[in-house]
Amino acid sequence: MAFIESHRRSILKAFSWRLWATLTTIALVFLFTGRLKIAAAIGGLEVVLKLLLYFLHERAWNKIHYGKREITPFVLWFTGLPSSGKSTIADGVGKRLASLGLKVERLDGDKVREIFPKTGFSRDDRNLHIRRIGYLCSILEKNGICSIASFVSPYKESRNFVRDLTKNFIEIYVATPVEECERRDVKGLYKKARSGEIRQFTGIDDPYEAPENPELIIHTQNEPVHASADRVMAYLKQQKYIM
Amino acid sequence: MAFIESHRRSILKAFSWRLWATLTTIALVFLFTGRLKIAAAIGGLEVVLKLLLYFLHERAWNKIHYGKREITPFVLWFTGLPSSGKSTIADGVGKRLASLGLKVERLDGDKVREIFPKTGFSRDDRNLHIRRIGYLCSILEKNGICSIASFVSPYKESRNFVRDLTKNFIEIYVATPVEECERRDVKGLYKKARSGEIRQFTGIDDPYEAPENPELIIHTQNEPVHASADRVMAYLKQQKYIM
Repeated sequence: MAFIESHRRSILKAFSWRLWATLTTIALVFLFTGRLKIAAAIGGLEVVLKLLLYFLHERAWNKIHYGKREITPFVLWFTGLPSSGKSTIADGVGKRLASLGLKVERLDGDKVREIFPKTGFSRDDRNLHIRRIGYLCSILEKNGICSIASFVSPYKESRNFVRDLTKNFIEIYVATPVEECERRDVKGLYKKARSGEIRQFTGIDDPYEAPENPELIIHTQNEPVHASADRVMAYLKQQKYIM
Repeated sequence: MAFIESHRRSILKAFSWRLWATLTTIALVFLFTGRLKIAAAIGGLEVVLKLLLYFLHERAWNKIHYGKREITPFVLWFTGLPSSGKSTIADGVGKRLASLGLKVERLDGDKVREIFPKTGFSRDDRNLHIRRIGYLCSILEKNGICSIASFVSPYKESRNFVRDLTKNFIEIYVATPVEECERRDVKGLYKKARSGEIRQFTGIDDPYEAPENPELIIHTQNEPVHASADRVMAYLKQQKYIM
């Protein structure tokens, strides 16, 4: 949950703290010396001195960058054939990033198509769909929120549109070969495509234009999901997006 | 800019503050009493007591709600004929909300269509367009960001889709009559629609389905822009979205 704390609350809280802290000092000095006047004088001076000290302390810490890190929001874009493993790896990365305290929005092709069931599979429909998701990512990025998108996104044109629209676009090509994807066939779609029940299926009767210069290529045949997710995290660390 | 401050930084800063604050107390007591042992004893006890006091102070303030307010993100949706004044009023509201410290994303029909120039004006195209903008608003809302959308959005169907998709949907009907909009004709579009140069123009040869139960109706003929923006702010205050 997000809260806004008013200036008045902060000021009141600071005074409240100073009151109790200084009363403690006065009590301590009185306890040790038995002299109320000295205790009160120390307390009075303390209020002034500590307010000044607090200010200087804050200014000094402003110059110390230890433990302070600007968040550079980014767009992690997983592309690859159906059943290549995009969503599973993206889910893993999403959980890891959220546990680091980053604001993350997870966008998945299947889930978005559930909300927009009429989205077609023609080249134009797919390109427009990806462009619009990219626009969403760019607005999230502008607002300091990272997005993790997993979409087949088979065409270079719309992937590059998203790259241009966003600031920190990280294209991750999940390069599972089509034979392996068809063997997995998580949702039984390859079977339907082979039988002709569905058309325009990427990898069967619609082309997949592999990225030419992706930021990262993942070969899911050589490593388990958690290792792939770790490799994405390692890349983000290497690029200083995360620590 | 957004920063993440690590736990280590907070802990180090707390110890740094306690060190300097207690050194100040010791110096004060020594100055007033001239007795180093007592000054040191008071300092030592202060460290323990103030750490405890700070904790109790924080807990006590947690129960005080003064000046603390949960932010409920919302979607301000301006609908109305072309040239009705939607964008101008929405801009005014956007500035007012941003000055209150709210995170606000301003979405405008014309600007979104610049990014997606192929978006058509058929009923299906328009409905899909609005649905997708609504999806964007719902994700922003989920992430604590308010959105201010100004779109002609002439059809009930897609406006209600957005209402259902979001949690706090505030529909603002900018009810400027078509004659007045055509008289203003900010972008010269009514002229083009009348001459047949453009088709499917809302208000001329495409219907505008006025909202039946909008949260707010604005009559721009009766008040200047700043007064309309103030009325939106008054509504948000009345509904406790802002203070």
